[in-house]
Amino acid sequence: MELEQVKNKFYEILEKNRAYNYSMSLIYWDGATGAPKKAVDDRSKILGILAGEVFKLTLSQEMKECLIALEKESDSLDKITNALVKEVRKKHDKFTKIPKEEYREYVELLSKSKVVWEEAKNKSDFSMFQPYLEKIIRTLRKFVEYRGYTSHPYNTLLDDYEPGMTVEKLDIFFNSLKERIVPLVKRLQNSDKKIRTNFLNETYPIEKQKEFSQYLLEKISFDKEAGMIKESEHPFTIDFSPRDVRITTHYFEDNLISAIYSTIHEGGHGLYEQNIGEDIAETILGTGTSMGIHESQSRMYENLFGRNINFWRHLYPKLIEIFPEQLSNISVNEFYEAVNKSENSLVRIEADELTYSLHIMLRYEIEKMLIEGRIEVKDLPRVWNSKMEEYLGIIPPNDKKGVLQDVHWSDGLFGYFPSYALGNVYAAQFEQTMRKSLDIDKLLMKGEFDKILEWLREKIHRHGSLKKPNEIIKDVTGEDLNPIYFIEYLENKFEKLYNL
Amino acid sequence: MELEQVKNKFYEILEKNRAYNYSMSLIYWDGATGAPKKAVDDRSKILGILAGEVFKLTLSQEMKECLIALEKESDSLDKITNALVKEVRKKHDKFTKIPKEEYREYVELLSKSKVVWEEAKNKSDFSMFQPYLEKIIRTLRKFVEYRGYTSHPYNTLLDDYEPGMTVEKLDIFFNSLKERIVPLVKRLQNSDKKIRTNFLNETYPIEKQKEFSQYLLEKISFDKEAGMIKESEHPFTIDFSPRDVRITTHYFEDNLISAIYSTIHEGGHGLYEQNIGEDIAETILGTGTSMGIHESQSRMYENLFGRNINFWRHLYPKLIEIFPEQLSNISVNEFYEAVNKSENSLVRIEADELTYSLHIMLRYEIEKMLIEGRIEVKDLPRVWNSKMEEYLGIIPPNDKKGVLQDVHWSDGLFGYFPSYALGNVYAAQFEQTMRKSLDIDKLLMKGEFDKILEWLREKIHRHGSLKKPNEIIKDVTGEDLNPIYFIEYLENKFEKLYNL
Repeated sequence: MELEQVKNKFYEILEKNRAYNYSMSLIYWDGATGAPKKAVDDRSKILGILAGEVFKLTLSQEMKECLIALEKESDSLDKITNALVKEVRKKHDKFTKIPKEEYREYVELLSKSKVVWEEAKNKSDFSMFQPYLEKIIRTLRKFVEYRGYTSHPYNTLLDDYEPGMTVEKLDIFFNSLKERIVPLVKRLQNSDKKIRTNFLNETYPIEKQKEFSQYLLEKISFDKEAGMIKESEHPFTIDFSPRDVRITTHYFEDNLISAIYSTIHEGGHGLYEQNIGEDIAETILGTGTSMGIHESQSRMYENLFGRNINFWRHLYPKLIEIFPEQLSNISVNEFYEAVNKSENSLVRIEADELTYSLHIMLRYEIEKMLIEGRIEVKDLPRVWNSKMEEYLGIIPPNDKKGVLQDVHWSDGLFGYFPSYALGNVYAAQFEQTMRKSLDIDKLLMKGEFDKILEWLREKIHRHGSLKKPNEIIKDVTGEDLNPIYFIEYLENKFEKLYNL
Repeated sequence: MELEQVKNKFYEILEKNRAYNYSMSLIYWDGATGAPKKAVDDRSKILGILAGEVFKLTLSQEMKECLIALEKESDSLDKITNALVKEVRKKHDKFTKIPKEEYREYVELLSKSKVVWEEAKNKSDFSMFQPYLEKIIRTLRKFVEYRGYTSHPYNTLLDDYEPGMTVEKLDIFFNSLKERIVPLVKRLQNSDKKIRTNFLNETYPIEKQKEFSQYLLEKISFDKEAGMIKESEHPFTIDFSPRDVRITTHYFEDNLISAIYSTIHEGGHGLYEQNIGEDIAETILGTGTSMGIHESQSRMYENLFGRNINFWRHLYPKLIEIFPEQLSNISVNEFYEAVNKSENSLVRIEADELTYSLHIMLRYEIEKMLIEGRIEVKDLPRVWNSKMEEYLGIIPPNDKKGVLQDVHWSDGLFGYFPSYALGNVYAAQFEQTMRKSLDIDKLLMKGEFDKILEWLREKIHRHGSLKKPNEIIKDVTGEDLNPIYFIEYLENKFEKLYNL
């Protein structure tokens, strides 16, 4: 075959896979945002078939031949094609080692697990979810054995979300965070500063919260003709292309900021996906380059912007306009302090900036032990609670607020949580660089989010997965990943806030 | 290959096709109920790829071999497998004659046409839609040439929706309807009876209309855990399996009954799909047997039940409860008369029972001429308006209320409209038989819709496509399709209503 023919064949297979993945994403979205209850089994079955096809195509003899032929001719190929070949090669090699039937069963298992988890969480009954989680862990450990690993089985899973990340690096990283954040948290607990937050828990009608979420998305330049916001149990972002990026949130009538911050958070993910370059939009490179970099975008909007006093100087008047009864007597400074109050709390997605990493650390340690086989799934509630007590000084009153709080494990996402902590670190490092050319505080105060988005689009978003995490951080900031910016940011902010 | 192996292979291909069709349906549903605007092209492309795969699998050498092998052994096969083989053989032979690439382009064309139609309708600008419709007609005529036809090219299209139906039969059928309905319509116009309807067009808040639609669906035993209702431009029903059947409606603040009757109508379609037998639920036989029989179920609920005085004796109190200001002073009899008022109107889906068939007749005649090539697409607005004047005595003020009113042509549904008229005829014939064993009026008055549904499930729904239209009508009523029941029903009802 001529090179041009091989290339066409390669792109044709990728297109077909894109159609199946698109369908799977839509089935997932549909299931999470309101598909009829009784359709669960059908959905799992269809997902299983589609995943099987993607699997089969990726591992097909045809694809194998394409890869070999294209790899030989990499010098005569364009940059994007070469990157695609690398990307597919990685998946190909990953899957070659997993038997097709086992993978298909796993996809069906995950689809059912998600539903069981939702019910188990609602009933706060871990034992319902336990057999599913046991199967998931058993399967993942088997898959890691099939795939092989260097020095630690968990490394193989980490690499799926954060290419190049290892247990060794993470252990050092978490230790360095612990060294300065844990003492800071303790100093805060001894502070006399009292921050009032009771006004955040008055009655905030959901319809009006929706109005503010919509306003917020418009403000930060989320393109509503290329996306939408809906509700689901656990907020998430899903992208079909830069022209169709969907986010969800979850409203609570007695909690104003839960939905606000999940909207900004998912909005940050959404902006990344909406601003991927047109040249790669319809390829598998047309998505965020890693979970950590993705999370840096959501955390940047949620914390570095959304918990900055200047952000609220611009947006607070609108919030008062929508909720005059609840907020008219609260100053923007009181509001700012309230949304930044640090508290040792139970639920990760509602944790503050400061204690957040401790929630991740707990999950990281549990995941490592599960994959090592050092603890059993049935012991999880106990282990969870004892670690919560150790790191945060509080014990969950039930599994709903404890071990069942996150959707991730029901989705098979092991090795994923550390990205959340990495996201904070990347974000602080990016923001520090951004400050060299943009007056971020002034832009936030004037509501000029488009200038910020322009910087992010140019430096980060448009590249999609064409640049890897380590390239992005180096190209943008001039150095490798460095937690110091995050740590100093936290110290400066919270020492000031708590008059330490 | 052993017979058992062939059978497994056959079912495996069908399963895969089911996954692709499921995905296509979901993409369609998503597009019609709120997907982001900018995602149109992506959606078309993905649909094109999936349709191409279904096409390829149906026509694959593997499928061909399965069909031949299974057809030889039909004596040793179960009833369902034999019916599946027949069904696939029909599609296989239909598609063998259409070049794959042309079919794929056609699917993409339809996806775009739908969006253009929606905009053209909103702007009431036929010229926007014209080039798309021209392409559709050109493609359909070419496809009919590829597929071949007996006596009239339109017969090939008719057979897709109503197996066995022909232009010859339809001409006779419409003539027989014309003979007795047209004079009845004229007699009505000379009646002195005045029916008040102004109260139907007061302001009915949409949120409250939604509440009644939900109530209505519960009443008629639509299973909400196996389905849902949403909104779209043009109401429709889509089924993924009996466990996931979705319907849409369209609310207008100044029109109470538009949404009510589209909800009952689509609800009738939905009940058919929700009550298909478990034995065929996950096969291609697990859906209504023809458009005409399907429409008999929706029309039965919409007209024979939903426009029966006893239906409202049961439901009207709830309607008053929701809309006390608008309806407290209106008696159930006045309401009954209002929803049955016959009027020569412009829009098919809002037409009354009596004039409805005339709207279908007009479309039937236009479609026949388009397929024959006797008129050009650009002349459609003119032809449409002149026929409206001829049959109904009124001329549409714009294309939105005229030739652009229906979604069907943008979806390539030619040969489909006649099913609507056939649906009325089937429905009246079924209902006449049902009356021999059930006191329908009493059941409606007591709101015992479950007994009615049980009858329909047993006689019609559960069989899905295992029985063909002519078998169903014969098995249930003891005779072939006979328009006399429909005609007599209309005469009795409207003579009484208008004191003729």
